[in-house]
Parts: sequence; C-alpha cells; structure tokens
Amino acid sequence: MNNICEAPIGVFDSGVGGLTVAREIMRNIPGERIVYFGDTARVPYGSKSKDTVLRYSRQIIRFLRTRKVKAIVIACNTASAYALEEIQKELDIPIIGVVKPGARVACQVTQNGRIGVIATDATIQSEIYTDFICNQDANIRVIGKACPLFVPLAEEGWLDDPVTIQIAKRYLQELKDSDIDTLILGCTHYPLLRSTVGKIMGSRVRLVNPAYETALELARLLKREGIANPGKNQEESEHYQFYVSDASDKFKQVANSILPYDIDTTKQINIEEY
Amino acid sequence: MNNICEAPIGVFDSGVGGLTVAREIMRNIPGERIVYFGDTARVPYGSKSKDTVLRYSRQIIRFLRTRKVKAIVIACNTASAYALEEIQKELDIPIIGVVKPGARVACQVTQNGRIGVIATDATIQSEIYTDFICNQDANIRVIGKACPLFVPLAEEGWLDDPVTIQIAKRYLQELKDSDIDTLILGCTHYPLLRSTVGKIMGSRVRLVNPAYETALELARLLKREGIANPGKNQEESEHYQFYVSDASDKFKQVANSILPYDIDTTKQINIEEY
Repeated sequence: MNNICEAPIGVFDSGVGGLTVAREIMRNIPGERIVYFGDTARVPYGSKSKDTVLRYSRQIIRFLRTRKVKAIVIACNTASAYALEEIQKELDIPIIGVVKPGARVACQVTQNGRIGVIATDATIQSEIYTDFICNQDANIRVIGKACPLFVPLAEEGWLDDPVTIQIAKRYLQELKDSDIDTLILGCTHYPLLRSTVGKIMGSRVRLVNPAYETALELARLLKREGIANPGKNQEESEHYQFYVSDASDKFKQVANSILPYDIDTTKQINIEEY
Repeated sequence: MNNICEAPIGVFDSGVGGLTVAREIMRNIPGERIVYFGDTARVPYGSKSKDTVLRYSRQIIRFLRTRKVKAIVIACNTASAYALEEIQKELDIPIIGVVKPGARVACQVTQNGRIGVIATDATIQSEIYTDFICNQDANIRVIGKACPLFVPLAEEGWLDDPVTIQIAKRYLQELKDSDIDTLILGCTHYPLLRSTVGKIMGSRVRLVNPAYETALELARLLKREGIANPGKNQEESEHYQFYVSDASDKFKQVANSILPYDIDTTKQINIEEY
C-alpha cells in the first residue's frame, strides 16, 4: 500500500499549458510526485476530431502507466471533454479532467446565474463548459468568448503588457456587457493572464481558475482513495519528471516561465509507439 | 501530352497559410488547375523534427499523386526547408518550395547587402533563409526576427488594426535599426499583413513576398518542361480542389478571407493512410 502512495501522479496536456495545473499540484499537494507529459509533436488538440483526441489520450495513458502512476490528471480542456468519460470506464486507477472541477465551482459561486467562459476557439465551439454547467443547473446562463490571441500573448511573456491589456479589453467587453458575476479561465494558459483579466473585469466578477480547482479535487480524491503521499520528500531526485513527444526549446522556455523553478531536462519519447 | 498539360498542380501546407501561395498561382497562371492539401490535423510543422516533417511530406505527396498532379509546390516554409531536397531525388515530376524563390529574389534586389527575414519562431531558429542566402552570396548579412503573434493576428482578420500596428512596430523596430533595404515575408500568413508591415518599414525597404515569387517560378518551370496548361478553363467544375486532414471550420473561415472567392467544400481525408 505504501508503495502505491509513493507512486507519482500522471499529468498530461497537448503541450506546455497543462503546466499551470502541475504548478497548482506542486503548490497545494507538494508531497506528490508528478510525471508530466506534453504532446508537443501533436499540439494543438483543439482542432482535432474526437476520435483522434481519444486515440492520442489512450496512447499517452499507456505511456504514463509504464511510469507506474497511481492517478491521472487530464490537464487539457479538449482531452477532458472528448476522452475523460470513455477512458474512465477503461481504467482501474482514478482519472480526473480540468473541465468539471472548474465548472462545478463556478456553479457554486455564481449569485446571479450568469457565468462567462473564456477559452480557445475550439473549446468555445465545443460548448464543453456550457453543457456541463447546464447539466448541473439548467437555469444558469453561460456566455462563452473565444480569445485566440491569449495563448500566443502568454507564450510571448507579455502578461501585463499594454498591448495585452488592449486586446483583453476588446475580447472581454462583450462579457462585461452581459452582466456575468463569475468568469472561468477555460484554457490552461489563461491563469498566466489572470491579473490582466481580473483588472478589466473588476472586483465584482469572481475568476475561477480550473487549474487550482483541479489540484484541490485531486487532493480530495487521493485522500478518499487512501493513496495520498504522506511524505514531503521533494528533495528526492526526479520528484517531478517532464516528457515531451517532440524536442522543443519552446517547451522549456515557456515551462520555465510557468513553474516556480527551471526545468533541467525534458525527455523526448516516441508517443506513437504506445 | 495534352493530358499532362491539363493535369492539376499539387500545393500543400501544414494548414491554411499556404493558400496565399495558391492565391498567387490563381492570379498569375489562371489556366492551371490546383489540388490544395492543408494538413490541419497535424499543424503546425514548425515545432516538429526534420524526420517527422519529411515523413508527413512523403505521405502528402503520395496522396497528391493519386489526384494525378503534374507538379508540386511545397507552400510551407518548414517542409520546404526539411523535405524539398530529399524528395526532389525521389520524384519524377517537378517540385518546388517557397524558400528558394523568395531568397533568390531578395539577393537580386538588395543594394546594401542587408536582408531582413520575418517568420515564425521555428523558421527563424532553423536559419533556412540565412543558409540559403549565404550560399548564394556569402557577403550578404541576414537579420532574422520571429513574430509569433502575426499568424494569430492574421487569422483574427485584424490586418490593419491599431493593435496589429502596435505589435508590428515593436517586432520590426530591431529590423529598422539594422538598416536593411530588403525584407522577406518568410511565413505564408504574412502577405496578409503586407500593407501594415510596408507602412512601418517605409518605402525605402523592398518587401519580398515568397508566395508571389513562387508562383512566377512555377510558371517558368511549367513552360520550360512543356507542361503549362494552355487553356483558361476556370469555368470547369473542380478547377480548384481543397483537401484537409481534419475537419475544420476555421480552415474555411480563414480560407475565405485569403482567396478571392468563397470555398464551397473542403474534403477531409485520412492522410495517415497514404
């Protein structure tokens, strides 16, 4: 049993964005080890079909299981929407995604029943958040807005930049006009722009960060299943491991701006072999 | 022989950007039929390894040959750099890329031997343009600048927008300071921002559009090989055909802003079967 508790958490995303989820796990449950996989060879998932995303997710999970993970976090909105339910049926270890934890909290905190969602074009088109929220409470109105420039702006590191503020104002005007009191940051990159978005939306609008809510959900899940890591052995080598499917300096560069420390090594694997 | 002349040109790119090349072929050699393939399932190529891009290019060429193309244009900077030379050896029909035609013209028009290149991060890192230009003339100095926000800005349709002008000014300042007299638009999306870039660089700097130069090179090649289409039968159905590897509304939407007419249908194929 002890053995299982010390096993790592598998976290995966189509690329680097899911590291905002890994970061929240590091902050909130520092005892847990992490094996992160970023599918840099096949990013982005948002434009791919459900079948393709499901096939990719299965391959990644087969890889993560070779690393003896005890639980899996799908740190990608598209894969959470397309693959979570199917894969949950196939797996004998716990698995969670980023959509439900964020959507659930948004439903709890809204006072006026008007929730905004900002995300990539693909996530908005898919209506993942809308579907999940309306299943929870059919009276809630969801207003989605795609913000395609937010990912490249975050990757440029222009987080509090005048240009970013100007673009964010333009994207968010529609949401301000529609009187939401809760806003979901529905793309894994967006927590990086949290402060800019918060300033524009004002203090009356509560921002929901699915990365943070997912880390808390994971902590509860591990405790419930009796597989939480009691130790705080972050000193151990390879406490956090990073794998990618294609060599990418960009991954390391963006990773080092997201994580609280610099990644030394990322290992490249051929994901298509899994 | 007549038969060969009437065969279409195969044009491919990792996504929608290569349509700026197709557009120049439509404008400059309107008699030619086109079969366009956009690898929307596997876009972008810039972050992928040489082996992967070569494998993808071979698959696409096998597909294009099933459409009986008489010549092929690689309308993608990364694939032109990584795959053109290898594939040229393997093929018995003519094939050209976008890098050489643009680079060659830039070498011809520069007066002061200082050429700028703007492109995606991947193209700049690869030094494709620098290598080719320095092979032509070792005395020319090439100054590269990655402009990662230009593609998403172009896809948003914010072509002459104040935000785009502000971002372009920031990206281009370094090139203005380095006294170039020629600037290559080294990414297939960038011709869409030509007017904004031109205004900022000023009339002293000559802009080179590789899409246009590639269309002219193709015209010369077809004539030389005796396989140019003498007719102007654009009225014929399926004069231009568009294939993609994954369903994408975005493809059609951006395509319709690039091409002089609206695409009715794109056909989806499973490129991994080729």
